[in-house]
Amino acid sequence: MSELTIYGDSISGNCLKVKIVCDRLHIPYRWIETSVLKGETRTAEFLAMNPAGQVPVIMKDGRALAQSNAIMLYLADGSELIPADAFERAQMMQWLFWEQYSHETVIAVRRFHKTYLKKPDSEIDPGLLPRGEKVLAVMDGHLATRTHFVGTHLSLADIGLVAYTRFAHEGGFTLPSHVAQWVRRTEDALKISHAA
Amino acid sequence: MSELTIYGDSISGNCLKVKIVCDRLHIPYRWIETSVLKGETRTAEFLAMNPAGQVPVIMKDGRALAQSNAIMLYLADGSELIPADAFERAQMMQWLFWEQYSHETVIAVRRFHKTYLKKPDSEIDPGLLPRGEKVLAVMDGHLATRTHFVGTHLSLADIGLVAYTRFAHEGGFTLPSHVAQWVRRTEDALKISHAA
Repeated sequence: MSELTIYGDSISGNCLKVKIVCDRLHIPYRWIETSVLKGETRTAEFLAMNPAGQVPVIMKDGRALAQSNAIMLYLADGSELIPADAFERAQMMQWLFWEQYSHETVIAVRRFHKTYLKKPDSEIDPGLLPRGEKVLAVMDGHLATRTHFVGTHLSLADIGLVAYTRFAHEGGFTLPSHVAQWVRRTEDALKISHAA
Repeated sequence: MSELTIYGDSISGNCLKVKIVCDRLHIPYRWIETSVLKGETRTAEFLAMNPAGQVPVIMKDGRALAQSNAIMLYLADGSELIPADAFERAQMMQWLFWEQYSHETVIAVRRFHKTYLKKPDSEIDPGLLPRGEKVLAVMDGHLATRTHFVGTHLSLADIGLVAYTRFAHEGGFTLPSHVAQWVRRTEDALKISHAA
């Protein structure tokens, strides 16, 4: 592979997903710290790479790619992080889309408002807490009988979901027991620090 | 393939994505109409298939799969709806994740509140209209120089994005010209009716 550049914000779980996959698969990269809070994703130069104004973005061979889960899938193509079985691959995709639609929009958003925008609870959308508890309950039910989200091996489903789940306490959430154990197990497997 | 069953709500663009892919690829299926408004996605039987309580869900060989874009990817595996080139495939994934994160949550949500819940504009989140206009502007900029979202052929990116864009007027949105032309072109290519 030619040089890979990652534009990422270190406080963003979405950006850390990309770093985790690169580290796991020994893919070399250059990390360009790009702060959302400082407006660095809203400059003309950044918007030319990603009109959606979001990190992470990667640059490879002069071409830009956005969306954390799309980037993970691209970088991990052909690796053991993507199940070989077609139905397990589909289940992994199911969890990745669920993560962006139902999980990130609640767990990551409440964390951002609470920890980074430093809003008091009274100024945070009151629906986020019960919605997040339901999201974590869905994960807990799934993990009650499983070591990993899909099949019998670590996959991008685990990486995609652990990214913000490990910081859920910063959003005021308490992890149910199966989820807490899976977070610890996954952090250990990925050799990343225990966030909680 | 053995028999495929689709649990879908005909008013849902997410569910129509699955039908469109099956029809395009001549995959036979049984459609079980499952109404969100009537609470048919909240029954114990349905939640056993999909704890997230969302349609569409497919059943295949006794196994359930949820998330519209994950289902499309599974059914279209190996077809011409998925680009053979790795980077174009990644770009398709980028648009599919963007659709679920930034597009569906605005365009489909405002349509649902306005057309199906029949709320007056004063009771709909006022942020949805400007956010939707920005989403459509991102699409319009991309389509200004392109026939399809990715590469030179129709792909799942077009199907995923057209699903709710063709009903955007029901959410009170006006399509920019390049988007309107692409919707018409894509509906014709897919042999589906002109929704607007």
